[in-house]
Amino acid sequence: MLDLASGGGEMSELLQLTELAERFRDERDWKQFHNLKDMVVSLQLESSELLEMVQWRSGEALDEHFRRERDQVGDELADILYWILLIARRLDIDLSEAFKRKMRKNEEKYPVAESRGSAEKHDRLRKR
Amino acid sequence: MLDLASGGGEMSELLQLTELAERFRDERDWKQFHNLKDMVVSLQLESSELLEMVQWRSGEALDEHFRRERDQVGDELADILYWILLIARRLDIDLSEAFKRKMRKNEEKYPVAESRGSAEKHDRLRKR
Amino acid sequence: MLDLASGGGEMSELLQLTELAERFRDERDWKQFHNLKDMVVSLQLESSELLEMVQWRSGEALDEHFRRERDQVGDELADILYWILLIARRLDIDLSEAFKRKMRKNEEKYPVAESRGSAEKHDRLRKR
Amino acid sequence: MLDLASGGGEMSELLQLTELAERFRDERDWKQFHNLKDMVVSLQLESSELLEMVQWRSGEALDEHFRRERDQVGDELADILYWILLIARRLDIDLSEAFKRKMRKNEEKYPVAESRGSAEKHDRLRKR
Repeated sequence: MLDLASGGGEMSELLQLTELAERFRDERDWKQFHNLKDMVVSLQLESSELLEMVQWRSGEALDEHFRRERDQVGDELADILYWILLIARRLDIDLSEAFKRKMRKNEEKYPVAESRGSAEKHDRLRKR
Repeated sequence: MLDLASGGGEMSELLQLTELAERFRDERDWKQFHNLKDMVVSLQLESSELLEMVQWRSGEALDEHFRRERDQVGDELADILYWILLIARRLDIDLSEAFKRKMRKNEEKYPVAESRGSAEKHDRLRKR
Repeated sequence: MLDLASGGGEMSELLQLTELAERFRDERDWKQFHNLKDMVVSLQLESSELLEMVQWRSGEALDEHFRRERDQVGDELADILYWILLIARRLDIDLSEAFKRKMRKNEEKYPVAESRGSAEKHDRLRKR
Repeated sequence: MLDLASGGGEMSELLQLTELAERFRDERDWKQFHNLKDMVVSLQLESSELLEMVQWRSGEALDEHFRRERDQVGDELADILYWILLIARRLDIDLSEAFKRKMRKNEEKYPVAESRGSAEKHDRLRKR
């Protein structure tokens, strides 16, 4: 049975979720299949499952679809998170720290004064 | 400046990271661009950035590459997490709860007795 | 210099393009890197490059962007075609025949009478 | 019934396939759903279907899998080609010409003398 370790309250939330993912994997002895290449491919495939949910839908109709299928959206986000957590763990990356560091990088790259409300700056966000 | 709200220690870690993401977005007034379709497309594109890092590499050479480029891997994982957090927030999905629920679903779908060490069961993991 | 073989007029167009792709690859002795896994990963990455062009754009603004960047769109489509051709060749798949066969399958699956103008049937097209 | 137009022998092969795709679409009155954004998203999703076939497989086992599932591989390549053809048509792009032009660009970018057998040059192929 998956359950948070007692006393887990002191463990960070992301670490707790990582341990759930690892326990699930290890109880099935699946670590042997988890090479980095297939882990990253799996992440991409899970992300595609979410993309499939937006295909042929947009605007308000899409919002409504996602609200109606909220549980499925949650499942897909969870599947993506599963791989992010395991990839981070494999490389001893503290995901929370990595996130804060990346947000600081983005802050420097997109100063508020120049970026505010700018679609162009926003559009460039990915082309770093 | 991005910084955790004082007293944030009682807030869950994922919620804290979500607030960092929202603050970054709101300081730049970028919420107006964030429709669900483009948020999901952006998630897919960030996931592709990580996929690009495994292209033409595998096995030990890939492990070494990821260790050497650990910061970049962390950045890419952070970019993916950014969109997961914002999509979850948009739909009022508690990502932590969604993850635990999905792990329980997977547990039922892949009973330890039948799945243990089985590449086939593992392979079917995504075809739910 | 890449150029169609003289007398290529009798060769099918897709075969001619395949030969261009192979000649480019072989002149650089790159076949050694082309395992199926990385070929498929590369196809996915090229497809993401096109996806990046639609990020944060839709409707008429997207149409206009694609018309203005028509050459870049052509480049991205060419990059995708490059991998399709090489993957088909690797497996001795006649892409033209495979396409006609798949269209016949789709025809049977989506009878005109039931599918005409139906968004739902259209939406199900991918879930075969 | 989908069938090549009589006298199609003088039409280029890619144009013939494009007409098959358009006839399939038009008989079902589906053009109304085909905005550029969803066409590109669909292309990405079809590419993911092929990526799913390489998940958890590599080397000789993958080669064998693709040989055994040759028809499915052909179907997936056809699905990708379907969208490439329709996107090219939408923008009046001659896919064959675009491909030749792109191969010439790649030739200039990767001179044989410098690129021959070089994994590094090969690796840089996508980062243009």
